[in-house]
Amino acid sequence: MGARAIPVNVSFLQELLGAVAEQGRQLLPRSLGGSSPRASLHELAAALLSGRGEASGVAIASEILARYRTLEAQERHAFLGHLATMQPDPEALAAAAKVYLANPNPSAVAALQGAVESPRQEFFRRLNLAPGATAQIVAMRQDLLAIADPALALVDRDLMHLLASWFNRGFLVLRRIDWQTPAAILEKIIEYEAVHEIQGWDDLRRRLDPGDRRCFAFFHPSLIDEPLIFVEVALMRDIPDDIQSLLREAPKNGDALETPTTAVFYSISNCQDGLRGISFGNFLIKQVVEDLVKECTSLRTFVTLSPVPQFASWLARTRADPESNLIDDIERERLQLLDELDWIYTYGNEAVRPLLMRLAAHYFLNVKTHEGFPADPVARFHLGNGARLERINWQGDISAKGLREAHGLMCNYRYELKEIEKNHEAYENEGLVAASRQVHALLKTERGRAEPGRFLQLSGLRSSRSGQVKEESE
Amino acid sequence: MGARAIPVNVSFLQELLGAVAEQGRQLLPRSLGGSSPRASLHELAAALLSGRGEASGVAIASEILARYRTLEAQERHAFLGHLATMQPDPEALAAAAKVYLANPNPSAVAALQGAVESPRQEFFRRLNLAPGATAQIVAMRQDLLAIADPALALVDRDLMHLLASWFNRGFLVLRRIDWQTPAAILEKIIEYEAVHEIQGWDDLRRRLDPGDRRCFAFFHPSLIDEPLIFVEVALMRDIPDDIQSLLREAPKNGDALETPTTAVFYSISNCQDGLRGISFGNFLIKQVVEDLVKECTSLRTFVTLSPVPQFASWLARTRADPESNLIDDIERERLQLLDELDWIYTYGNEAVRPLLMRLAAHYFLNVKTHEGFPADPVARFHLGNGARLERINWQGDISAKGLREAHGLMCNYRYELKEIEKNHEAYENEGLVAASRQVHALLKTERGRAEPGRFLQLSGLRSSRSGQVKEESE
Amino acid sequence: MGARAIPVNVSFLQELLGAVAEQGRQLLPRSLGGSSPRASLHELAAALLSGRGEASGVAIASEILARYRTLEAQERHAFLGHLATMQPDPEALAAAAKVYLANPNPSAVAALQGAVESPRQEFFRRLNLAPGATAQIVAMRQDLLAIADPALALVDRDLMHLLASWFNRGFLVLRRIDWQTPAAILEKIIEYEAVHEIQGWDDLRRRLDPGDRRCFAFFHPSLIDEPLIFVEVALMRDIPDDIQSLLREAPKNGDALETPTTAVFYSISNCQDGLRGISFGNFLIKQVVEDLVKECTSLRTFVTLSPVPQFASWLARTRADPESNLIDDIERERLQLLDELDWIYTYGNEAVRPLLMRLAAHYFLNVKTHEGFPADPVARFHLGNGARLERINWQGDISAKGLREAHGLMCNYRYELKEIEKNHEAYENEGLVAASRQVHALLKTERGRAEPGRFLQLSGLRSSRSGQVKEESE
Amino acid sequence: MGARAIPVNVSFLQELLGAVAEQGRQLLPRSLGGSSPRASLHELAAALLSGRGEASGVAIASEILARYRTLEAQERHAFLGHLATMQPDPEALAAAAKVYLANPNPSAVAALQGAVESPRQEFFRRLNLAPGATAQIVAMRQDLLAIADPALALVDRDLMHLLASWFNRGFLVLRRIDWQTPAAILEKIIEYEAVHEIQGWDDLRRRLDPGDRRCFAFFHPSLIDEPLIFVEVALMRDIPDDIQSLLREAPKNGDALETPTTAVFYSISNCQDGLRGISFGNFLIKQVVEDLVKECTSLRTFVTLSPVPQFASWLARTRADPESNLIDDIERERLQLLDELDWIYTYGNEAVRPLLMRLAAHYFLNVKTHEGFPADPVARFHLGNGARLERINWQGDISAKGLREAHGLMCNYRYELKEIEKNHEAYENEGLVAASRQVHALLKTERGRAEPGRFLQLSGLRSSRSGQVKEESE
Repeated sequence: MGARAIPVNVSFLQELLGAVAEQGRQLLPRSLGGSSPRASLHELAAALLSGRGEASGVAIASEILARYRTLEAQERHAFLGHLATMQPDPEALAAAAKVYLANPNPSAVAALQGAVESPRQEFFRRLNLAPGATAQIVAMRQDLLAIADPALALVDRDLMHLLASWFNRGFLVLRRIDWQTPAAILEKIIEYEAVHEIQGWDDLRRRLDPGDRRCFAFFHPSLIDEPLIFVEVALMRDIPDDIQSLLREAPKNGDALETPTTAVFYSISNCQDGLRGISFGNFLIKQVVEDLVKECTSLRTFVTLSPVPQFASWLARTRADPESNLIDDIERERLQLLDELDWIYTYGNEAVRPLLMRLAAHYFLNVKTHEGFPADPVARFHLGNGARLERINWQGDISAKGLREAHGLMCNYRYELKEIEKNHEAYENEGLVAASRQVHALLKTERGRAEPGRFLQLSGLRSSRSGQVKEESE
Repeated sequence: MGARAIPVNVSFLQELLGAVAEQGRQLLPRSLGGSSPRASLHELAAALLSGRGEASGVAIASEILARYRTLEAQERHAFLGHLATMQPDPEALAAAAKVYLANPNPSAVAALQGAVESPRQEFFRRLNLAPGATAQIVAMRQDLLAIADPALALVDRDLMHLLASWFNRGFLVLRRIDWQTPAAILEKIIEYEAVHEIQGWDDLRRRLDPGDRRCFAFFHPSLIDEPLIFVEVALMRDIPDDIQSLLREAPKNGDALETPTTAVFYSISNCQDGLRGISFGNFLIKQVVEDLVKECTSLRTFVTLSPVPQFASWLARTRADPESNLIDDIERERLQLLDELDWIYTYGNEAVRPLLMRLAAHYFLNVKTHEGFPADPVARFHLGNGARLERINWQGDISAKGLREAHGLMCNYRYELKEIEKNHEAYENEGLVAASRQVHALLKTERGRAEPGRFLQLSGLRSSRSGQVKEESE
Repeated sequence: MGARAIPVNVSFLQELLGAVAEQGRQLLPRSLGGSSPRASLHELAAALLSGRGEASGVAIASEILARYRTLEAQERHAFLGHLATMQPDPEALAAAAKVYLANPNPSAVAALQGAVESPRQEFFRRLNLAPGATAQIVAMRQDLLAIADPALALVDRDLMHLLASWFNRGFLVLRRIDWQTPAAILEKIIEYEAVHEIQGWDDLRRRLDPGDRRCFAFFHPSLIDEPLIFVEVALMRDIPDDIQSLLREAPKNGDALETPTTAVFYSISNCQDGLRGISFGNFLIKQVVEDLVKECTSLRTFVTLSPVPQFASWLARTRADPESNLIDDIERERLQLLDELDWIYTYGNEAVRPLLMRLAAHYFLNVKTHEGFPADPVARFHLGNGARLERINWQGDISAKGLREAHGLMCNYRYELKEIEKNHEAYENEGLVAASRQVHALLKTERGRAEPGRFLQLSGLRSSRSGQVKEESE
Repeated sequence: MGARAIPVNVSFLQELLGAVAEQGRQLLPRSLGGSSPRASLHELAAALLSGRGEASGVAIASEILARYRTLEAQERHAFLGHLATMQPDPEALAAAAKVYLANPNPSAVAALQGAVESPRQEFFRRLNLAPGATAQIVAMRQDLLAIADPALALVDRDLMHLLASWFNRGFLVLRRIDWQTPAAILEKIIEYEAVHEIQGWDDLRRRLDPGDRRCFAFFHPSLIDEPLIFVEVALMRDIPDDIQSLLREAPKNGDALETPTTAVFYSISNCQDGLRGISFGNFLIKQVVEDLVKECTSLRTFVTLSPVPQFASWLARTRADPESNLIDDIERERLQLLDELDWIYTYGNEAVRPLLMRLAAHYFLNVKTHEGFPADPVARFHLGNGARLERINWQGDISAKGLREAHGLMCNYRYELKEIEKNHEAYENEGLVAASRQVHALLKTERGRAEPGRFLQLSGLRSSRSGQVKEESE
């Protein structure tokens, strides 16, 4: 390279890269140009939709996203509100609706489909042309959900529609998370863990690195450093009944547990608020089961160790309800123990155990939402996936959170491959709760009397939606 | 591992993997079960849509795709025809249309959007749950386009809508193709090259491996071994005027051309018939320009060396039209040379050169489609991207194909970053053809008289759509 | 970035990169400097050894390698001859030798080790500092071996010593070669295949891509695109007896042979002439067996299908030797068939079969080198690895090469894990040839009389080195 | 797959994998076999050397390493002591020495080379056949160095020789360490940082993640998760004069420092004790300079911010030496301030500054080892690499360590590409210390009188080894 040539080239390079980087500015309508850096986002949004072609699209989309990032909360609300006004042309829509009604043939349907589609959808699709846009569109929905303005429901509807299509399971990639994973991803695992908080990097290592632990996450190719959902697994020889011993550091020589029989899913966390309502957990669990089975041929049992997040609040309401005949006066009195500080560490705590276990079984089997599904959200998730309620665990989680939410109870849901489908269908269609005999038996403990009419015993193991007492549902 | 344990585990493993693999069969409605392997695809399609939940979705989707692959052409046609019947519920749609007309508020719009969406879209989204489904859905559209049955237009509309969303540029990945690329991809480059056929692996290597050659392709993360579109580039010191010398093997020591100034895009090929109508070329060229500029700071000029695929057929029509005053009688006679075998190798071929060059300039600048865009499809692509027509090259491609399609002419389109946007907009909005003075000057050659009214000279360099003589367009 | 800053920076960049690139020149003794581009390689070699420090080392090493590449064959010979003069200092060596003899303690040994080490070794170690040097040092040894000048034996000794250390099996990486492998490596597979020539890319694909074919190679991290040795494997259900049907294209639907029982190693090729004498084959076969067993649990049998490269030449010598009592007159006459063109396609060819098979068995079991190992080099390799001779195959390879070298015979060596070690030790220590009963039985065919004293039957299956008739060895 | 086939296969698989895993045991001399799990390592070492062939080599090597890992410290010492007895055969060596003395020709040299080589070297080369052996051999040398037994010097000599050959710079790979790096490597960066301790993961992130920080490490392909040496770099606009502000968290918006001019190497740490004495730092710095220049074209200055680890101890000795005329009585008194707690935070600390700076300049320029090189080890490293001493910084490091070792002083060494070679040669050949005028000027501060004869001013900027006053060296 000659000495003279280089400065010239560089000057060209500088100009060219500058041109590329600044394309957005050049391409915008003159009124929005470089001179007015705060040019209206509304105009940019209109420009993006106006069909200035694909090249301009990338530039305008980048500009919109760059500006959006600098907006304050209120300005973001305003911009999202503006998007809510991007409605189909009412006259064209009315015309197409009339044509359809007059002559409801396929091409009238097609015309109506075209006329009714919100231009917002095309707006978001074009926004996605910009590099890194997908993550920012997800973040935009996160803003929208945080605002909780009913006027934005239309925007959310379109965003949700698009994101559900883009984040279709067919596009997701399962990756193992371990100590070889980049720190940039690991710190997000720490941040996103929602069930049993990770206390820094040492705690993280205890959950990922030992030979008997696994963690898996779904990723989307366009959000490469951002897990969508992840699950933490322990390989054991028994179904565990408390989280404390599971989370405790593994014994030095116990890492390479040779023939584990039981894979325990003890924490599943969604990571992206902006993808709320798009369900990945079901796919994740089934994919992980498949992969674990291939890796470790001694596994036979797949269970969770799960929290019961709303048991305590339901129980409080029940205790406060003088009409409830679920608990008699003696029992009400006995339950007062729960109101004492550190009751779990008292000698007397065992006295309340049979009662609490019975009430928990009732809570799982009989307490339903208005739609007829179990009141407990974690139960809805696993039962909806086709798992069955295997066991309720006394003192399963005696952390402050565990005591506050569930008086220390946890439970195991079991995924039995042969049953998954029939459980799932019975649940979806009839609201049946698949549960082990052991759980059903709890209903009869202590009081020594049956609770007739409380649940239908379907194939001996399920309670039905229809057997519900209305006032107990929530 | 104990000797006893293993057979047990394996038997479990076998059962489990079998269960996973055969899930599809188990999950299907009993009527479709394992006993009737040829169970109706229609019923499976209905089951996929019926909301048996996500787990069943994966299984049913896999089953549908597996069966579809085994269908004969006619059966595929029938199945696609069945999909055409997946229309919105007419009564619900009519009701929603009436509600909207009565009270055209946003929630009526939303309801109408819901009522009018074709269930086919959800069908395809669920089909995509199966592993590897995206590639098969693309292949399904390829089948559909090959059938060319108007009754399938509705299906194509939905497929196109979905695929355009899934193959949004934001999800594409640019990868360099070179001699380090896996053979599985390279053989597809050989197969898909549509402009200048690649004559086997040695020819491929000549196009990829030398230091002054580049090839880039767009990939989608879900079609990892399948390029969507690729471009071949030569780094040179001048704008080339013929393809033969460009494709000839580079001199042994000429590989590492030290300071190329000109990047020549000499072949752009779309690879996926099933994605027809979804444009990637514009994005590809601009991304490659950006990447080349970063890699090689001496580059200043970005041009194509392009075919003129329909010049010969246009000229044949013009010669056959006695009314055309584009060519006078002497010229008609002179053009008879083109009808002779091997005319290009005769001494007399230069005699026809000025005339052909003038006619080519006319063809580019003045001959338009009914929509007012250039008749030549390659011209429409590059001019639509914002390039300008830089030069027409005599004997640019004297291969049999080059002579047959364009009497040996090729041309260069030039991408000048500063002009791209204004060229693009002028083209889109007014049909203006950006061309160099050199090309415009060709119009005046030979006959010695101007051709008034033939084209508007916009800033001296463009011909407008409005300046067209109707009967010349196609 | 400011517009002014860039040219300055670039000028700095240019200077800096120039400085780095040209370091070599600057660092050399002034007499060798930039002014004299053909400065003596001898002086550079001396400079590299002279301890100008590590930084200079990289530069000087790069310069030496760059210049070496430009040398003609004769100049290379001269340079290698110069390296042969890099001997230890004779006076220091004599002194150290005397000290040792006077007082042979450990520190005298250490001093003598220091004094006797050839400075050439340090020269090559420093040469390896340059980027990409390892491959070039391997190439340098290839040059040296091609020259075959006894005066270079000292240089080869040191090169061999170093390369054996650098290419220690602990540093090698096994990689599967398939259709996903970069073309740059695949073309080397085509080039290096030494046993059954690969006829271009289509043939290559037939050997790599079908579901029942495998190919594995060893790589060294510093020669990343260069396989060191590779093996081609077919997964089958039987031990194959001819190469023609094995190489023929697999049936369309036969790719995914479901439960192969037999892995057939039908071609093993060393790739790097410059690493001649450093053995990788043994490690490769054992590693591949391990990997195949993990991948495909139905495999039980591991065999080769191997050529018998020197059988024909041995037989020719035997026939020419009137003293040999291996064949009687009738047999000599019968063997004349082999001299006829296309004898293999004659009806009569079966007549010579029993005789040839007997002679081949004799060739394998009884014909030895002076060191007491089998005369056949392929046999030495596999038997030395612990395999046993399983079968001799009539018409195993009827290609021109197969007929020329072995009258069409091939054989199978079998790797039986339990026997490998004892076979190996018996072979190494006593020259015993492990062979199946079937092969031993061939010795007795046709003539109807035993051949007493020809071989010792060790555990019924081996012939010993000591049982040799001297005049038959080679 | 048939149900019956699988258990059979698995049983075979189990047997086969077992066979492979247990090969070691089978292959050992019967006396060492499975029955006697504690079979003598000495016998195994002998077996490894005895030429049982390569397959046995892998097995025996694995067994030796596995057993070595389980040894207690004393047993390891004993085993290494045993290796020290692996000396060449004294008779063969004496014979070869005599032959050489009688007739010192090349083949006698070769024979002597063969006879004198320690069998230990071959032992270690064969030990390296085992998977993962290289890391364990490095660890073995770490044990050896920790033992510090002179009797092991012979073993160390051979290990060092081999490791220097295996870890030749030609085999090293430079990798950037950042927040995308696997946690398994990052935790080693935390562990190995030897200059400015990293206080956990947050501190690590501050050093790796911001846009103006870099970290690079050398890796060897066989120790893939183990950095050999790493350097931390800050990109700045000035040469920094204290470490506190450099390590402080970067301002939120200051990450992407746009045009840094100065790359500051503020920490270089060797990671592998077992590779002590094999120098990587020089290569690392030069490679990183090359890479940084390519990445960031605005960089012009490459400096270190380095500790002065032995200044305080040298000063203590000087103060304790009543004969030293470096400091007069007034100065001795003034230096007593340094003995006070927290003197650095007193108002009076500036009073001692000129004196300390003068003494530090003297320490760098004039205090030498017996070999004539600077007393300071960090100075020896950078000056030996060709850097020059650019500046001494008052209060450069006021951490406890910085005060204890250097009374808070730090210094900058500057790598000026044009000077590196001449500095390096002048240093190596004559012991000249390259230093800036600024540093030289410090020598004359305060006392107001020159210090004649203290140093030679070579081209005005260097002090020579020969100008030393003997009693000051150490």
